[in-house]
Formats: sequence, structure tokens, C-alpha cells
Amino acid sequence: MTARKSFASDNHAGAHEAVLRMMARVNAGDAASYGDDPWTEQACASIQELFGALGGVFLVFNGTAANVLGISLLLRPYEAVILPEGAHLNVDECGAAERVLGSKLLTVPTPDGKLTPALIAGRLGDRGDVHRAQPRAVAISQVTECGTCYTLQELRALGEFCRSEGLRLYADGARLANAAAHLGCSLADIAAPMDVLSFGGTKNGAAGVEAVVVMAEDLVTDAPFQRKQQMQLASKMRYLAAQFLGLLEDGLWLRNAAHANLMARRLADGIRGVLGVELWQAVESNAVFASLGPDQIERLQREWEFYVWDEPAHVVRWMTAFDTTEADVDAFAAAVRAMADGS
Amino acid sequence: MTARKSFASDNHAGAHEAVLRMMARVNAGDAASYGDDPWTEQACASIQELFGALGGVFLVFNGTAANVLGISLLLRPYEAVILPEGAHLNVDECGAAERVLGSKLLTVPTPDGKLTPALIAGRLGDRGDVHRAQPRAVAISQVTECGTCYTLQELRALGEFCRSEGLRLYADGARLANAAAHLGCSLADIAAPMDVLSFGGTKNGAAGVEAVVVMAEDLVTDAPFQRKQQMQLASKMRYLAAQFLGLLEDGLWLRNAAHANLMARRLADGIRGVLGVELWQAVESNAVFASLGPDQIERLQREWEFYVWDEPAHVVRWMTAFDTTEADVDAFAAAVRAMADGS
Amino acid sequence: MTARKSFASDNHAGAHEAVLRMMARVNAGDAASYGDDPWTEQACASIQELFGALGGVFLVFNGTAANVLGISLLLRPYEAVILPEGAHLNVDECGAAERVLGSKLLTVPTPDGKLTPALIAGRLGDRGDVHRAQPRAVAISQVTECGTCYTLQELRALGEFCRSEGLRLYADGARLANAAAHLGCSLADIAAPMDVLSFGGTKNGAAGVEAVVVMAEDLVTDAPFQRKQQMQLASKMRYLAAQFLGLLEDGLWLRNAAHANLMARRLADGIRGVLGVELWQAVESNAVFASLGPDQIERLQREWEFYVWDEPAHVVRWMTAFDTTEADVDAFAAAVRAMADGS
Amino acid sequence: MTARKSFASDNHAGAHEAVLRMMARVNAGDAASYGDDPWTEQACASIQELFGALGGVFLVFNGTAANVLGISLLLRPYEAVILPEGAHLNVDECGAAERVLGSKLLTVPTPDGKLTPALIAGRLGDRGDVHRAQPRAVAISQVTECGTCYTLQELRALGEFCRSEGLRLYADGARLANAAAHLGCSLADIAAPMDVLSFGGTKNGAAGVEAVVVMAEDLVTDAPFQRKQQMQLASKMRYLAAQFLGLLEDGLWLRNAAHANLMARRLADGIRGVLGVELWQAVESNAVFASLGPDQIERLQREWEFYVWDEPAHVVRWMTAFDTTEADVDAFAAAVRAMADGS
Repeated sequence: MTARKSFASDNHAGAHEAVLRMMARVNAGDAASYGDDPWTEQACASIQELFGALGGVFLVFNGTAANVLGISLLLRPYEAVILPEGAHLNVDECGAAERVLGSKLLTVPTPDGKLTPALIAGRLGDRGDVHRAQPRAVAISQVTECGTCYTLQELRALGEFCRSEGLRLYADGARLANAAAHLGCSLADIAAPMDVLSFGGTKNGAAGVEAVVVMAEDLVTDAPFQRKQQMQLASKMRYLAAQFLGLLEDGLWLRNAAHANLMARRLADGIRGVLGVELWQAVESNAVFASLGPDQIERLQREWEFYVWDEPAHVVRWMTAFDTTEADVDAFAAAVRAMADGS
Repeated sequence: MTARKSFASDNHAGAHEAVLRMMARVNAGDAASYGDDPWTEQACASIQELFGALGGVFLVFNGTAANVLGISLLLRPYEAVILPEGAHLNVDECGAAERVLGSKLLTVPTPDGKLTPALIAGRLGDRGDVHRAQPRAVAISQVTECGTCYTLQELRALGEFCRSEGLRLYADGARLANAAAHLGCSLADIAAPMDVLSFGGTKNGAAGVEAVVVMAEDLVTDAPFQRKQQMQLASKMRYLAAQFLGLLEDGLWLRNAAHANLMARRLADGIRGVLGVELWQAVESNAVFASLGPDQIERLQREWEFYVWDEPAHVVRWMTAFDTTEADVDAFAAAVRAMADGS
Repeated sequence: MTARKSFASDNHAGAHEAVLRMMARVNAGDAASYGDDPWTEQACASIQELFGALGGVFLVFNGTAANVLGISLLLRPYEAVILPEGAHLNVDECGAAERVLGSKLLTVPTPDGKLTPALIAGRLGDRGDVHRAQPRAVAISQVTECGTCYTLQELRALGEFCRSEGLRLYADGARLANAAAHLGCSLADIAAPMDVLSFGGTKNGAAGVEAVVVMAEDLVTDAPFQRKQQMQLASKMRYLAAQFLGLLEDGLWLRNAAHANLMARRLADGIRGVLGVELWQAVESNAVFASLGPDQIERLQREWEFYVWDEPAHVVRWMTAFDTTEADVDAFAAAVRAMADGS
Repeated sequence: MTARKSFASDNHAGAHEAVLRMMARVNAGDAASYGDDPWTEQACASIQELFGALGGVFLVFNGTAANVLGISLLLRPYEAVILPEGAHLNVDECGAAERVLGSKLLTVPTPDGKLTPALIAGRLGDRGDVHRAQPRAVAISQVTECGTCYTLQELRALGEFCRSEGLRLYADGARLANAAAHLGCSLADIAAPMDVLSFGGTKNGAAGVEAVVVMAEDLVTDAPFQRKQQMQLASKMRYLAAQFLGLLEDGLWLRNAAHANLMARRLADGIRGVLGVELWQAVESNAVFASLGPDQIERLQREWEFYVWDEPAHVVRWMTAFDTTEADVDAFAAAVRAMADGS
């Protein structure tokens, strides 16, 4: 609740008014519960079509749940997931995967948040050894935790590698819309190499909803039961569906994401050449990662809200959102420049 | 989506307009995520005060999650929950407790959905025997699955028995508001004997939110972490909080519940004396359980929506909601009477 | 450590000398660990042949582990096991199935420890309902917890029913040898209708070993990994294998079991007509269940060791073992008779 | 089953004859099951005294189980273990900790298998952050996976650090006897800084038994139930106890370990100066880690059994055991030298 726009997280933003409007619109009268309502059917059908998914679409409450449900469709109890060390699933979900799935996460250090076939291959040495949890799924994030995007070519290469190795490919798509906007491609293009992926609503203007998109038809049987058992089945599902209906109307999801990306780009441009400020990662979504001088961080945080990503390296993360304005960005960039001049 | 009011479930109803209005009101501008916002603080503080809870209040997405989170605060891995065989936690949650908690549920048959000290005692024979999961918590539902309510005296007796036996007492309060309305008491009166309980919003006019209320201060430490790990931490928490703020304003939660109860009472009165129709349980909430002739059920279901509760016994369940009108009830009661005349 | 033979449990007996002799015999020199040794190969091959198992055989440390590993091959996380309320898996394993598998156990009351197609059918009502854990496996015990045996016809009927319903059939065979001895049939006859079953060594003269026998070839893939993950892979496996080699030599397993059965039969005969003593179950294995007068139990327990099975019903359980002698039985029967005369 | 002594693993060795002799000695007559027998009491009391343990001692079947049971006494569900990346618990137990405990393992790369306060501190950054599994236990191995030993000073420093940070300290003591022999100290000296640790029998001449030693009295309550639930309670416990009784008699455990260590030392000495062969780690137990030329490995493995530890680095592991003879070592060392000369 600061007067100044928060650059801390895209979930500091509220919901887009179209989302709330749609929630109000579905409110009249009775509706069958647990997803047997026309709005859920419509939202899921639309998403399924956008992704070209042969399996189905399952709405859940948040991103942690989307990841855990998605992964649960891919693993037997003794099978493991290969994923980047910094993955949300590994670092930011309080051990939900270990607790709910009982699965081991096989982490791989990455400089930019991206897995490659070579990095995955480095984790496959012990397949068939009964003493080792067996690698069976690969989990990437698109957009990555570092704000970078896999190119379509990279995704295809991952998909081909996984298929050739008998691995399943999952993508955490909490910011998938931002990736689509950055790549200028369809969601189906991104999703094609995947077995299961999530499609985030919350960070892109929803109040709180994510979709688990099952691409492969043979993986869908368990999904309704797993969702319920994982405590993610909404009784009044229409209010989850409505949020996606709002985002899907006239491509709002893409406009929101493209705008947020543009604001990140504008911020990166606005601080170009500022003394002591260096971009740490390419700006390929709605995130700007930069390294600052240590006392620069502290001074800037007195007036602006954002996270320090890597304390020892003085790397900060600045997120934009669908409702970040050019004025917000310009004011913040000016603050960064002023701080540098004053240092 | 029938023109006729559904009597199938109180979650067929939409959200109360005050709830949606409050969601729109909290929408403006940024807010800290994951509950560090003023609305969450206000909603939780209000609920905590209503319950006289020394621990704290934790918002979650649905009733299954409230039960699992609540129970998780009470058990070590080898400890078990004693609960009625028909409990939602046992029957309707797809094994979430077993999966997420790994805990055994020790079920007790009950005629009316209510546990008693004697029924609980019958499950305590093997304490200390290393071969047996150790009973440690008792889970009741208030309102019960049979639509009945424990009296305050019954609750106190359960609480005293549990304390004397070193057991923890949990209550599934998905319809706790209806119980308070029926008993004419405060939420604190009901909650006093409990260690942890849930306070349902969804069935009482919310779009989708429940609160886990931790009465005992020493049980609260784990709760924030367990909630996150159990995939129930909302990033844009303000939209969960807003729903409770809407329900708490001017005691809307109690008016909604009292109205729903009244409509159930009116329905029970409206079918009194109808041939072949017998109440199966006392009407103490927003549910009417009745036995009908087998072909009566089928005929009535052609035009009205409701669930058969017990197929062999021809018992049906008719639920009312905050938005059930007197006209809805009267039309339905007339249909029941007409069906009986025609049989 | 009483001078008098214990009738409390067949695991109060020691190991048969042939078992210890074989353990000493395999002791010389090095052997590959984790089961890649010739004795394990030989023991498992022999058991596989005795059962006509197409899958494979996996040695584990104890009966709880055999049940949990066996069941784990049959279930997805949201699937449940139908089993008798009194099953060891439900009552005597401290919730291991819930903890390790996360699976729900759907219990059925039975008068004699036996499931029937009708009893199983009564638990199948909610298949496909996403709110319910989905019944997928049926677990019986042969010998049952009540000392009774399914006939081959009953087993076949269960097998056919399960196949027709898409259910998997598991048998806890902690006392399978006693069942084979009672029925006068081969292990393959008993095993034919099963998908997976256990074959107990410990209660039949081993020091501590059980085998999980996988009948169906398509169920075996997971077994080596599940056994390791479930902490049941012995590094020096030869000492588990040796125990079975000892029991398999010259059909010792069958002679041990037949003898124990005979001693139970002799005990039942020896107390026939004693005032106040009634058989509670048919004597079909190495167990005699009888009801006594309440103070008879107490007096008898002053000098003899046995368990009270059902306190309120004054039912006791008397177990014989491979090393129970005729003299042991006769002395005990005399004590029962003397007690009755004295009362 | 090679005529040549295996240098692959200390569990390729058989059991010491004193162990088998003791198993035969406890065999006579009945004994109460599940550990209520005099031999179990004696073995556990002796171990407890050797360690100065205030809690208690619990026998289990294997090392994986000892680790999982030991760790289970230390953690709440959302709490995590800090441990070396190469720890057996992390790498060699097929994800048992994740499956059975649902706990996250926080791995730390180490050059020599040893944790330090500084390495642990690097994993403590996010305590209190609800998004992160909370570090609560530290698990070391003594002897480490690299064959090295913590000094008593290092152990004390770890203990003090853990206490000051509110962390619990666990040690995987599968080869604890070898550490005691190397350090020339008592087991109590090693155990003093620990909360829980395991004491391995299997690799030191037993047929298959490990002890979980609970140092802290307040941690012992759960242990009997956790052991049973984790499928590690032997019914005929006397045969586990007997193995330890055999090892404890006249300090056989220490002599076995000292001998194995001596043989490793002799091997290291015997290959000193061989061209192309370099020790990779200090020889502080019964393991010799050495780097060889790649085709040297292949040639040596044609006739001798051992594992390649690190394929790309050409590091091999040579293990000695209680029954490795000087002649075995000398023959093997000669083979290493011959191979080097021939290359």
C-alpha cells in the first residue's frame, strides 16, 4: 500500500477490472458445483484450444499447487524430477513437492535459469540403479526464475531430448503469457514440446487462478482425482473460471503480458548507462535483474519496494505488472539515476 | 442451471453481493502479497476476536484444505484421528488426509453424525501399543454431515473428555455459522472447547474461502509453514480476506446462516404430514433429510435438483442457502405434496 | 522365557535349526550385495516356481513391509484398498500404509475375517466420484486374522469378481503355508487368483524373512525400486535367502505348517466339551480362538501365555508353532480342563 | 563369488562367526516378540552405555532405515535436513527420506564429504521465510562417504554450532566403528555432540542390523512408534539383538573395525609411488580412494572387484572388511603395481 508503484512482485498488483467484472457476471443464480458449470467448461475449452492440448485443463488456486499437480501426473513414487536449482518448485514452495508427492528433486545449477539437454544428461547417470531415485520428469520454467525465456528452438530441443530419453517435460508457466508476448508466438507453439504445463493467471491480472494444461491424452486420467486429493478442487468453481474468461476475452491475457514486458524493457532502457548499475540477465519478460552497489540498494529501498535477489552479489529484481504505467517506470528510473549521481 | 432453485447443495448458490463488492473495493492499487496486507490483517483479527482464539487465523481456499491443515497442527506422523464414519474428512476428500498427512483415520459409526465421549472411548483401547496408530485428535463436524448440531453442553463434554484423555479436539466448521444461528450462541461459545476449528465462508455466501482458527496458542507455530506447504497460501490474499470482510460486515455471516436455517425449517414445516415422507434427522441447520418412497424420489428429481443421501433407505438431502427464498421453498414443498398426492 | 510353551504367538518360537544351519552355510567368503548372489537367485527362483509367478519374488524383512510393498505395486496415490476391518494391515501396522503409501484403507466388518464379493461390492458405490478415494485393490489374509482359511473356490470367486470389476487382489500370506497345509493344495493353487501376495517365513520357522510374490508380469517393474525406497533392501541379502532355502529344503515349510496346524487341531480336540469353553471360529490353521468365562481367562493366564482377542466377548487366541509339541498341547489342554473343573 | 577377495564393498563380506554363533545361542525356546526379550534388552543397554545415550537404542534392519528413522525423530513436516550432496541419505536411498518422511534435503557440495559450520551457515539464509522448507537438522556421516573422519574437535564444533543455531545434529554411523578405531576414542566421545546417530553392524561383521541411538532423552518418545510405522520392528527381535551381542563381546566390533582400517592403510602403503595412481582422499577408515589412469581401471577390474567412484575423474574406491587378510591386500597391491608397470 505505497503511493509509489511496487516493483517487488507482479502479485502486488490487484486484479484487472475485466476479471472482477466477469466474476460479478457469473454470480447470478445457481450453478452446479465442482466445475460442472458452463463457465468452467467454456474457460477450460478455450485454454485447451489455445494450447492445442489433447488431455485437458484443470483450474487450481495457486502456482505451487499447479506445479505439484502437474508433476504428480508424471511420476511414480520412486521417480524424480530434474530441475534448475533456483526453480520455484525447489526453493519457494516450502517443500510441497516432497511432502505431497514424496518425490525427490534433482537440482542442477544454471547461470540463467535455463536447463539444456547437456545439463539434464548430467543427471541421468544412474538410471536403472535401484539405489537411486529414477529421473523421470524434467521441470523447466517459462519465463524462468531469472526472467529469461527459452526460445522455441530451445524448447523443441528439450522436448526431443526428453522424448528420446523417456523423460516427461513439464513447464511452470506462472508467467507463460509473458513468454508468449516476448517470443511473439502462440501458446500452442510453446506448449507443443511439453507433456504438462501450467498457465498462470494470478501474476497476469487475475485475483488468484492457475490452469494445469495436460497436453498428452494418456496423462489425463489421474488429474481430476489428484486435483481433489491435493485440495485444489473449488466448490464454486465458476469464480475461478470467470477469472480466466476475463483474461481470455479479446486477448486481454496477451495485452497484459505484453504491456508488463514493455514496461520492463522501458525500465531497462531508462537505466542504461547509469554508473554502478548493470543488467544481470537479458530482459525477456516483465523482470529486470540488475546489480547495484550495496549502499545504492539500501538507499533505493527507502522509497521504492523491490527484492534483493542475491545479497552477496548485490543483484536486485524489479518486476513490472499489467498495471505498471510509463509514469511509474519513468519515476523509478529517475530515482535509480538520481541515486547513482548522488553516490 | 435450472430456473428452479437448487436444493442440492449450499454451494450451488453464488456469492452474496456484499462479498463481491468487497472484493472490488480491495482491488485498487498495490498490496503486499501472501497476506501482509491490511485487509487480511483486519479479517483475521476480526475472526480471531469473534472466536476468542489465542493462536491465530489462517485463510485457505476450500473446506478440504481447512480440515487437512487444521488436523495437521494436532498430529505426529504415527498419531490418528477419531471421527464419525460419515465425516467429510473421511468420505468426501478423496483421501487427502491420508495422502498429505499420512495419518490414519479411526472411524466410528454414528446414527446422527455426532460423536460422544463413549463413542470416542471405544476407540482408545490400544493407546501405548506400538502396533497401533495412536489416537491423538478427535474431529467432529459442527453442523454435522446429518444436518444436526451439537449443543453447547455436548461440545463442552467432548472438550472435557478430550482434555482428560490427552486428546486434541478439532471441528470441521464448514457450516459453523449455521450452528451458531441454530444454537443462538456466539462463535466463541462453540469454539471454546476446541483446539482448532474451521470457519466456513463458501457455503455461507462467499465465493471461496475458509478460515482455520487456532484456539490454542501453543499450536500456532507450525501453521504458516504447514499452510504454505499444503499449497494453501494465496499470493493475492486480499481477495480471500475481502470475502470474509464482506461476510463480517454488520453480521452478514449470521444473517445469511439464520436465513438459510429458516428456509430449511419452513421446508420441513411445509411437508409435514405428507404421505410417505418422513424426516430422517432433526432439522437444526440448513438441511432437511427425509425418507421418501423410491419412485417419489425419481419423480421429484425430474424437476428439482437434490441429492439422494442413502439409496437403499430412500433418504434424500435438501439444502437451503442464503439466497433461497420463501417462494422457492413453497414451490418445492408444493411439489413434494403434489407428488405424494399423485402416488 | 517361560518354561511352559507360549501359546501367545507363532513368533514367540525361535528359528528352525535348518534355517540357522543354512545361514551358516552361506556365510563363507564374499558375495555380491543387495541380492546379486546365487543363494538369493536360487531362493527366489524356487519360490517363483512354487507359486507359478510370472512377475518375480522380492525378499523383505517383515510382514508389515511385505504388505506395504505388495499393496504399493497396485495403487495410484488416490486409489484405495478394500480390506477386512480386523486386517493386520489396518490394525497392527501403526498406520504404515497410510504413512508410506498415503493410501486410504476402506474397511469392511466381517464375522470370520473373510471378504466376499458381496462385501466388496458394498464398497464400490462411488467409483468415478472425484470426491472419493477410488477402490482399486482388495486385500485379504490367507490364513485370516481369525485363523480361518478361504477355500480355493472362495479364492477363485474373489479373483473373478476382482477381475470383472477392474480390481487387483492382494493376499497377506504371513501364514500362507498353514493355509496350504490346511487346504491340502499347492501354493500355486492359492496364488492363482492373486495379483500379488506375500509368503511368510518368520511365523513358520524362519528368523525373520518374508517374500513378496508378484504373480502378474506387468506389475513387477516398480518392485525393485519400491522395495529399496521402502527401506527393505538387505545389503547382505544372502542371510534372508538362506532362511527360505532352509525352509524350502525337502518341503520343510509345509511340514512345519502342517505340524503347527495339527497341534492346533489337537488342542481344539483336547478342550472339547469343557464347560464354559466354546470355539469361536473353525480351527483351520495353527490358531484356536475360543470364548471362556472372564475369570477363567485370568486364572489360565497366571500360568500360561496367550492373548485375549476380544476383551468384552472373553475371546482368547491360542497359537501353536512349528515347535509346539504334543506334550505342550496336552499340558495346556489339561490346564484348561482343570480350570473349568475348578470354577 | 570370485576366488579373489572383493574390494568393492564391506558388505560383500559375510558375517563374523561370533555373530552367527550368538544367533544360534539365542535360538533355544520361546521368547517374547517385538523386542521384549532379554537379549534385546541386553544389547540395547550395552549400546546405550557405550554411547552414553540418555534416550534409548532401537534396532533396525538396514542403514537406509536407520537414517530415515533417525531423521524422523528430528523434523516437523515442513522442516529440512542440511547434508553433504554425496550423502548416502541423499544419493543411495532411492528417495526414501522424501517418500517416507516427506522432507526436503538441502544439499551442500563438499570436497571431502565433510560439513563445516560455515557450509551449514550458507544454507540458513531463509529461516522464518514461509516459502522455504525450514532447516532444522544437520546430517553428517562418520565415516564420511569419502572415507574420511571428522576429528572430535570438528564434531564438537559442529555440535556447538548446531546448538547455537537451534539445529539438531544427526550422524549416519554405518561405519562408526571404523571412525572410533581411527580416532582412538570411545563411541561416547563421537556421540556426545549428536542428538541422534546410527551405529552400523552390517558392514562391520553382522549379517544385517543397525542401531539408532537416541542421545537426547526428549527425542525418544516417538521412536518406538516411528520404528514400527517405518516397517522396522522385527517380530523375532532376538536375532537382531544377537548380532550386536556377538559384536559387543570382548570388543569384537572395535577389533573388526581396526583390522579393516589397518588393511586399508596397508593397501595405501602398498601402492605408494605406483605410477599413475594417486590417493584422492586421506585414508582414515577402511576405504582407499585413488585416481587411476582410465585403462588401468578397466584392466584391474578384469580380475578384481571394486567400484569406480567418479567416472570422469577416474577415481576408484577400494574397501576392506573385517575379513580382508594381509595376503588379500598384498595380492591386490601387487596387481595394482603390475598393472602400472605394464602400462
